[in-house]
Amino acid sequence: MTSAAWRDPALPAAERVEDLLSRMTLRERTAQLYGVWVGAGPDGGEVAPLQSEMSAVPDWDELIAHGLGQLTRSFGTAPVEAGQGARALAAAQRRIAAANRFGIPALAHEECLAGFTAWGATAYPVPLAWGASFDPELVAEVGARIGADLRAAGVHQGLAPVLDVVRDARWGRVEETVGEDPYLVGTVGAAYVRGLESAGIVATLKHFAGYAASAGARNLAPVRAGARELADVTLPPFELALREGGARSVMAAYTETDGVPASADARLLTGVLREEWGFTGTVVADYFGIGFLRTQHRLAEDRAGAAHLALEAGVDVELPTVDCYGTSLVDAVEAGRVPEALVNRAARRVLLQKCELGLLDPDWDPEPAGPVVLDSPEGRTLARRLAEESVILLENPAGLLPLSPGASVAVVGPRAADPLAMLGCYSFPAHVLPHHPGVAPGIGIPTVLEALRAELPDCEVTFTQGCGVSDPDSSGFAGAVARAAEADVCVAVLGDRAGLFGRGTSGEGCDAADLSLPGVQGELLDALVATGTPVVLVLLTGRPYALGRWAGRLGAVVQAFFPGEEGGSALAGVLAGRVNPSGRLPVSVPRTPGGQPWTYLQPPLGLASEVSSLDPTPLHPFGHGLSYTSFTWTDFGPPEAETGTDGSYEVTVTVRNTGDRAGAEVVQLYLHDPVASVTRPDVRLVGYQRVGLAPGEARRITFAFHADLASFTGPAGVRVVEPGLLELRLGPSSTEVRHTTRLRLTGPVREAGPDRVLRCGTSVAPVE
Amino acid sequence: MTSAAWRDPALPAAERVEDLLSRMTLRERTAQLYGVWVGAGPDGGEVAPLQSEMSAVPDWDELIAHGLGQLTRSFGTAPVEAGQGARALAAAQRRIAAANRFGIPALAHEECLAGFTAWGATAYPVPLAWGASFDPELVAEVGARIGADLRAAGVHQGLAPVLDVVRDARWGRVEETVGEDPYLVGTVGAAYVRGLESAGIVATLKHFAGYAASAGARNLAPVRAGARELADVTLPPFELALREGGARSVMAAYTETDGVPASADARLLTGVLREEWGFTGTVVADYFGIGFLRTQHRLAEDRAGAAHLALEAGVDVELPTVDCYGTSLVDAVEAGRVPEALVNRAARRVLLQKCELGLLDPDWDPEPAGPVVLDSPEGRTLARRLAEESVILLENPAGLLPLSPGASVAVVGPRAADPLAMLGCYSFPAHVLPHHPGVAPGIGIPTVLEALRAELPDCEVTFTQGCGVSDPDSSGFAGAVARAAEADVCVAVLGDRAGLFGRGTSGEGCDAADLSLPGVQGELLDALVATGTPVVLVLLTGRPYALGRWAGRLGAVVQAFFPGEEGGSALAGVLAGRVNPSGRLPVSVPRTPGGQPWTYLQPPLGLASEVSSLDPTPLHPFGHGLSYTSFTWTDFGPPEAETGTDGSYEVTVTVRNTGDRAGAEVVQLYLHDPVASVTRPDVRLVGYQRVGLAPGEARRITFAFHADLASFTGPAGVRVVEPGLLELRLGPSSTEVRHTTRLRLTGPVREAGPDRVLRCGTSVAPVE
Repeated sequence: MTSAAWRDPALPAAERVEDLLSRMTLRERTAQLYGVWVGAGPDGGEVAPLQSEMSAVPDWDELIAHGLGQLTRSFGTAPVEAGQGARALAAAQRRIAAANRFGIPALAHEECLAGFTAWGATAYPVPLAWGASFDPELVAEVGARIGADLRAAGVHQGLAPVLDVVRDARWGRVEETVGEDPYLVGTVGAAYVRGLESAGIVATLKHFAGYAASAGARNLAPVRAGARELADVTLPPFELALREGGARSVMAAYTETDGVPASADARLLTGVLREEWGFTGTVVADYFGIGFLRTQHRLAEDRAGAAHLALEAGVDVELPTVDCYGTSLVDAVEAGRVPEALVNRAARRVLLQKCELGLLDPDWDPEPAGPVVLDSPEGRTLARRLAEESVILLENPAGLLPLSPGASVAVVGPRAADPLAMLGCYSFPAHVLPHHPGVAPGIGIPTVLEALRAELPDCEVTFTQGCGVSDPDSSGFAGAVARAAEADVCVAVLGDRAGLFGRGTSGEGCDAADLSLPGVQGELLDALVATGTPVVLVLLTGRPYALGRWAGRLGAVVQAFFPGEEGGSALAGVLAGRVNPSGRLPVSVPRTPGGQPWTYLQPPLGLASEVSSLDPTPLHPFGHGLSYTSFTWTDFGPPEAETGTDGSYEVTVTVRNTGDRAGAEVVQLYLHDPVASVTRPDVRLVGYQRVGLAPGEARRITFAFHADLASFTGPAGVRVVEPGLLELRLGPSSTEVRHTTRLRLTGPVREAGPDRVLRCGTSVAPVE
Repeated sequence: MTSAAWRDPALPAAERVEDLLSRMTLRERTAQLYGVWVGAGPDGGEVAPLQSEMSAVPDWDELIAHGLGQLTRSFGTAPVEAGQGARALAAAQRRIAAANRFGIPALAHEECLAGFTAWGATAYPVPLAWGASFDPELVAEVGARIGADLRAAGVHQGLAPVLDVVRDARWGRVEETVGEDPYLVGTVGAAYVRGLESAGIVATLKHFAGYAASAGARNLAPVRAGARELADVTLPPFELALREGGARSVMAAYTETDGVPASADARLLTGVLREEWGFTGTVVADYFGIGFLRTQHRLAEDRAGAAHLALEAGVDVELPTVDCYGTSLVDAVEAGRVPEALVNRAARRVLLQKCELGLLDPDWDPEPAGPVVLDSPEGRTLARRLAEESVILLENPAGLLPLSPGASVAVVGPRAADPLAMLGCYSFPAHVLPHHPGVAPGIGIPTVLEALRAELPDCEVTFTQGCGVSDPDSSGFAGAVARAAEADVCVAVLGDRAGLFGRGTSGEGCDAADLSLPGVQGELLDALVATGTPVVLVLLTGRPYALGRWAGRLGAVVQAFFPGEEGGSALAGVLAGRVNPSGRLPVSVPRTPGGQPWTYLQPPLGLASEVSSLDPTPLHPFGHGLSYTSFTWTDFGPPEAETGTDGSYEVTVTVRNTGDRAGAEVVQLYLHDPVASVTRPDVRLVGYQRVGLAPGEARRITFAFHADLASFTGPAGVRVVEPGLLELRLGPSSTEVRHTTRLRLTGPVREAGPDRVLRCGTSVAPVE
């Protein structure tokens, strides 16, 4: 066997895989096309297939006799010590390899949305907080650290990042996204991918594509969107993450768009992804997504029919079941219902990836190389830095923050003293522990209350919960109001409880009917404001909530999303002044709870207008965020400029910290296209640069704006750059303009080619 | 001049128009391409151009010197006696004809959404009530009556019907639509068109197309929809109304879909409408809609650019301004910017229509032929019949209705004693009178309270308003509650105030943030229910509102939308038992106010699911409605059947009135397509028949279901019939199934051709 060509690491991977395929039976090739959901039990024992609500438990020996494509989340199912889990995985891999003729192990994948979803792993801020940081470089470092941890544990593939662009903030999975702007999602998402892939982990871009726009924000509901919205809003982050991040896997979305399920969409999974973008990795199904073609979308009468549709469209791997790509596929191929070439195409991609990962090599060894540490000091430091950069100061009209030394502080609210308040739905405690009601280990994450007490030893800090996150009981209001009334300042810590499928107020399957604060928290805030004590509202949420009801009535507002295990310290640091807030909104904060969906990417008729009684203008716009220091913006480029439709132009500004403390400004570049052949958003983000400045320090920031960044899908369905006037607007948010360059593009309408510039180059230079 | 060919009625219209065109200057031809907003003053004096917020007043003599395409709403601007208005219009027409070289008058158009929008004209129920009647034959009679009234007044074109299919019930214009199902909208809309056109009036189908699906239900906001939704949901009513109704005009919608404004969409206005459907009439702009291409959609830099886009797409007539098709178009053609052929194409269509209307004939005479009566006894009778058929009894769990003789009745609510509560936004009083604050004539429409007192002379009927429609004042609750507590039954008359652009809670520009009853009416209802007195909820609304909060707690619920000038009597008749309710829901009544949009046309993943915390299941489904009598359904067709993909099948049922009073049942036929090549709605309406039955009477109803009715836009973008199993479900609503035929379609996938059957044939036969 070892003399076979496919075993020879010196040969090209493609050659090895062709040799291997030629030796495999149909049954062996299909066995590479699915993964099964496995787990090490709470005792850290053997990895074995799990019972799931959606499919039966396969017999392990029978299952692996012909090989196995993937192992699904052996860490992600029970609280097991990391080293023990890694050894159990290695043992399972040896067993899988030994069971098939070729000795091929499975490719092991895990969730890693905001850190490795394993017991005890570093819990980073959620992606919405990554967006708030406007700091792709830091996110890349986080991705690299997560990747290293996954690799050390024996994992090959991570099912992240989520590159869905927020289209309806009511959707439960908004916390998993980077925000409502494709450029922000793409650049930050690509950075995470770059980091993960740099550690040798296969990054998985999801959910491809359209999922975020489900009707009424109900999870998995049909998506009503046209081809242009898909091309110009939904797809660009994926393209960027493939081109710049080098992602090697893509996950097909559950949803259908305009009647066509993503898992059966050959134009999307093969046409756009492979033929247009040149992708060569694997397309994996979302869990049970292939079966959904039969049971939910009803495009197939039976499992083999669903398998046929998915394979033909370009889904290479079924996860985490053998429902469709198992024996029903083998039978269908043998019966001539499904072309064997489709199986071979998918198997080739899977085996090529296994080959590149070293899983076909003679010296393959699944044993962990060293101790498995999933919450290293480096990870914690990165989690803290990202948490600190992601906290957004939305309002501070009279400088109530930072809190004065010695002030008496009444902390109130259901999110102040719960460590789970720091974590999103894909954290291990929210995602996995509810499945193990007997197991309730402490998660060891400081709460806002604990962190604030540690941060403010000289302050009297009281705590009253006031109410729960979502229950209607307001009997605790009186106690909270009494404490608030007596204090110098009230810190109300409100927000979401992340959970799965109705267990929370945010997270997968926890969709909101409107953007009101959950439960009676809004009423609690009313009562606190009515005391007259200045109120600092701290929000730990998975989505933006409508705050117009309290506009002008709060002492300060701090928005933190789910900031991870170091979030309590980051928030306490902001409240106390140790940390200068520098986050910016990756999503608009609405004024009123109804009238959704709305995001800032709107052509004029999507903005406030006299023709509707509804005013969608947000309370706080996309990109907004305050600082404890002040910045001046000077030395802008000229107000008028000209370049070709294939040309570029440099936009420059000098930013100086004119306050007395260090801080970071986020310089944002927006494009306004006054006249185009289809409607265009009034403004959209085309560049940004976060810049940290010591007191008095200045830096010159230069954006290299290529005309291709003004491209869009024109009337003929092709991405074009049109001649004419553009406005390049520099500002600290999507609505505040500090400088405008009127850039005239000259020359013909030009098709934006496959090598088009998708990212605005930026450079930062010191200024004397 | 009279010897010219174009003047000769004996020659074919096309020949006459070509001759005329050849004699006209460019300026004269463009003059046919616009209309101006005119009005007779309150004194009934001369018709002259009006001041508008959107455009300047043109000089009358200068304007008409080269001709004039259209006159906009000379009746629809001030309360003028009908005969006086008709004479003023005739005088204006003589002046217009005299001013141009050819003596061509204008084509006069008016609004006629729920009756002629003129002072004193019969106010019919709004289209949503037409939908509730499920009675296209009666709607055709109404259309014919409205047409006759328009024609008697000298009007040529009516800007109705609205064929938008409800996609988001929060939209303010839902009251103007027929409902949320394309088949219902199409069949009822086509009937109205048939009626209007039978009177010689040019019907105008609007808004073409997509308008109803604006994002967040904000009027004119961008529409996010794909090509399949457009083809299978949005367009079928228009096609049906053209093919079966013979409409001669179509209005381009304000909105854009997926980036392309309807007014600049050649594929829609020329490709689909003319090339595919064979339409030969005129396409008119929605008011100011061509200018919007420049000012709102930003597809053009100047007026000539907007004119070019609209003409090229296929908008023939600008209304009600000369902004784009006036001198700016002439200049642009002369400068070579706009091809003259585009002007000629549009002018040809306009003149052909004028020719067919007799406006080019030598014996043309604008003078009214007889007395102009806009609220005839025939009209009132039709208005009453349609109102009675459109009232829906949603709940009556313990038979509280009809009210017992002699009961003491506490009537409560802001809609009980306001005659305007009967009328929608396009009624003259709501549409026009607010523009004339000095003029407030009584509108002479009986209120629910007045009608109920007349209907129940032996009952003690008290009235307390309780609260306003939308203001937050609840100080009137106590009085209302006291009256309700003392009475045997409380009748709560709640709902909307129709108005334009924020003047109401329903109507154009009056969009809702969610589906809560407006203002504090829900709280008033809570207080009334808490008295323990049985409450009959009567809703006079422009959209469905969420009623889940009161599920199981109301004595009865009656939904009436805006039932027109005879609506008070119809409602009182239902409450008293004189009228047996027979309306059925044309829109779903939701359980909760949030989570919109949702309509019943949903594939499985659009229905309630464990993967989302939001349950969109309505409280009352599409098609639901109760009666005071009972019906049995028997003698169904066989449970299994087979036909070709080009075949047909007859579905039959015998319905018998088994109660002791006359009543009407609405037999509904729904299609369930278990497996298809794209996702399909779980059920959709494909046939219905309203049948009135005396006590004990039975009738046999037969639906001729042609396989083409199962067609949909397949993966390749073409409308196809696929072989396989279908379920034809007979029932009294979209969720209650009385019988299912499993119909197997055999043969190949078949393209549904242009002559495809779009309507289910029905026949009703007596049964011994």
